[in-house]
Amino acid sequence: MMLYSRLSLVCFIVVGTACFSYGQSDNAESLASWNDGQTKSVIVDFVRRVTAKDSPDFVPEGERIAVFDNDGTLWVEQPMYIQLVFALDRVKELAADHPEWKTKQPFKAALEGDFHGIAASGEKGVVELIMATHAGMTNDEFSDIVANWLETTRHPKLNRPYTQCVYQPMLELLKYLSANGFKTIIVSAGGVEFMRVFAERVYGIPPEQTFGSSVKMKYELRNGKPAIIRLPEIDFVNDKANKPVGIQRYIGRRPIMAFGNSDGDFEMIEYVTAGEGPSLGAIVHHTDPVNEYAYDRDSVAGRLVKGLDEAESRRWLLIDMKSDWKQVFP
Amino acid sequence: MMLYSRLSLVCFIVVGTACFSYGQSDNAESLASWNDGQTKSVIVDFVRRVTAKDSPDFVPEGERIAVFDNDGTLWVEQPMYIQLVFALDRVKELAADHPEWKTKQPFKAALEGDFHGIAASGEKGVVELIMATHAGMTNDEFSDIVANWLETTRHPKLNRPYTQCVYQPMLELLKYLSANGFKTIIVSAGGVEFMRVFAERVYGIPPEQTFGSSVKMKYELRNGKPAIIRLPEIDFVNDKANKPVGIQRYIGRRPIMAFGNSDGDFEMIEYVTAGEGPSLGAIVHHTDPVNEYAYDRDSVAGRLVKGLDEAESRRWLLIDMKSDWKQVFP
Repeated sequence: MMLYSRLSLVCFIVVGTACFSYGQSDNAESLASWNDGQTKSVIVDFVRRVTAKDSPDFVPEGERIAVFDNDGTLWVEQPMYIQLVFALDRVKELAADHPEWKTKQPFKAALEGDFHGIAASGEKGVVELIMATHAGMTNDEFSDIVANWLETTRHPKLNRPYTQCVYQPMLELLKYLSANGFKTIIVSAGGVEFMRVFAERVYGIPPEQTFGSSVKMKYELRNGKPAIIRLPEIDFVNDKANKPVGIQRYIGRRPIMAFGNSDGDFEMIEYVTAGEGPSLGAIVHHTDPVNEYAYDRDSVAGRLVKGLDEAESRRWLLIDMKSDWKQVFP
Repeated sequence: MMLYSRLSLVCFIVVGTACFSYGQSDNAESLASWNDGQTKSVIVDFVRRVTAKDSPDFVPEGERIAVFDNDGTLWVEQPMYIQLVFALDRVKELAADHPEWKTKQPFKAALEGDFHGIAASGEKGVVELIMATHAGMTNDEFSDIVANWLETTRHPKLNRPYTQCVYQPMLELLKYLSANGFKTIIVSAGGVEFMRVFAERVYGIPPEQTFGSSVKMKYELRNGKPAIIRLPEIDFVNDKANKPVGIQRYIGRRPIMAFGNSDGDFEMIEYVTAGEGPSLGAIVHHTDPVNEYAYDRDSVAGRLVKGLDEAESRRWLLIDMKSDWKQVFP
């Protein structure tokens, strides 16, 4: 009888611990690079609210989807979008085969290092520049080019490989959300196949949860082997009002959390926070000129005007990098 | 001491069972509607080969992706694609607003119930018919229309709701693969938003793992509320040589299993089985005229010629519905 009791006690402890680690703890302590304060509380409270089974705002695990912009939200986008740096390096490498680039914008500006000229070609020009330098090979070949470039180049100011120019607090947030049954998905204006080269290794986000802008592709046999060929034609620019369209296209249901940093993310956050159930929209505000950069309204990359003006009235969370984060990089 | 031993015995049994169910058993017994024989063995052996940690062909869980066609692979496509039945019902409902349909193919044929005329408009005509009847509303509105139609219509021969015209052995296969760490993903020529209405409930496959053909969409505010509007313009026809492109677009890495049933799946299976690691391609062959239908080379829906001719030389598995399945429907 006494040993039966001991057995019961063992069972109670085992079961009790299991319940606690599953139902109660939410691993909020893993957000170690976030300062305690209102911002962290809003995130943690939201996660607790949608994961606690007895909560009126409980959301089943399969519906816990959190979408993230990439440039300026998960990694650095200053002094220039990283993929744009890659594209400029590619333009220089490919210029010999494209004499017309010497007179055609935005390629002329790219070859001359004329960033104002590139900017003057507008977002469409920038995307064209990126797409034109990202096509004409198989997708596997492109991935190898990107992987090699990421291994051999470093950020000019931060002096580290670009894959280490990722925000430590956001890495912790991704893990924290995964641990709480969320599926984390990238919805970026950046090129999807560029991001897929490093997203799984760096962010823990697999290719099938990484989406962005894309070129058209075709399938063909090359030397008898099936290959996906990248065509020099834009398929989809996953930015601004296209982000909710991309969400429908690639995910097919409304996420409940959205993290962005620029007005390119405005419609994504607007769409996510217009759902009938609980939702949280958040903007990473770049306010740390010492450890990273400080910019918003006047920046070419990651311009933030509307989001800044309307965050409060829309009850979107503004993440202040300088005051909310203890540490920016890993 | 005796009771301590009993406790040890209990622990041994518990731990032993846990190890067995995790590491050794692969739930092959859950494939209850599959006859024992070579076909079932090929599938089960493949799954064991890629999931056993000590196997030279071991594939990490995140890379275990299995893609499935939908029409004719997971559910019935005779006497007509189910989504085409839906489209014809919609044409009749919408005809009053489209007087031009009386003279324009394939709409004219659709209104007249002239299936040869519809077939004569080709696959593109069929897709156009589907797309034209699937646009001009928000995506949520479309989903409601589909859900309502699925609830209120029945298959003419099988006399059951279309959502019960799904193949029981394939439902078991989807569950079996999920239990073995596979992500199961639909890659269909059917309309993606049509399938997403029932795929999660019927197949256990969530929207973000369901892909198909699509119309273009745009994001706008309707009465101040964010909405995704379906435009009457084809975005992507996810069939034939576009299936590998769709796989790259939506998944971003090569699956290791592919299940189809028609020549529309040929390139998908070709692409999947051309990977460097282990892979399995399979074709569901419709050979059961009593319980379902028997068709291949001469069928309009689900025509299978090339796949049948080349399955053996390519070492693709032919699933013979009549001899390999004990039962067709749930």
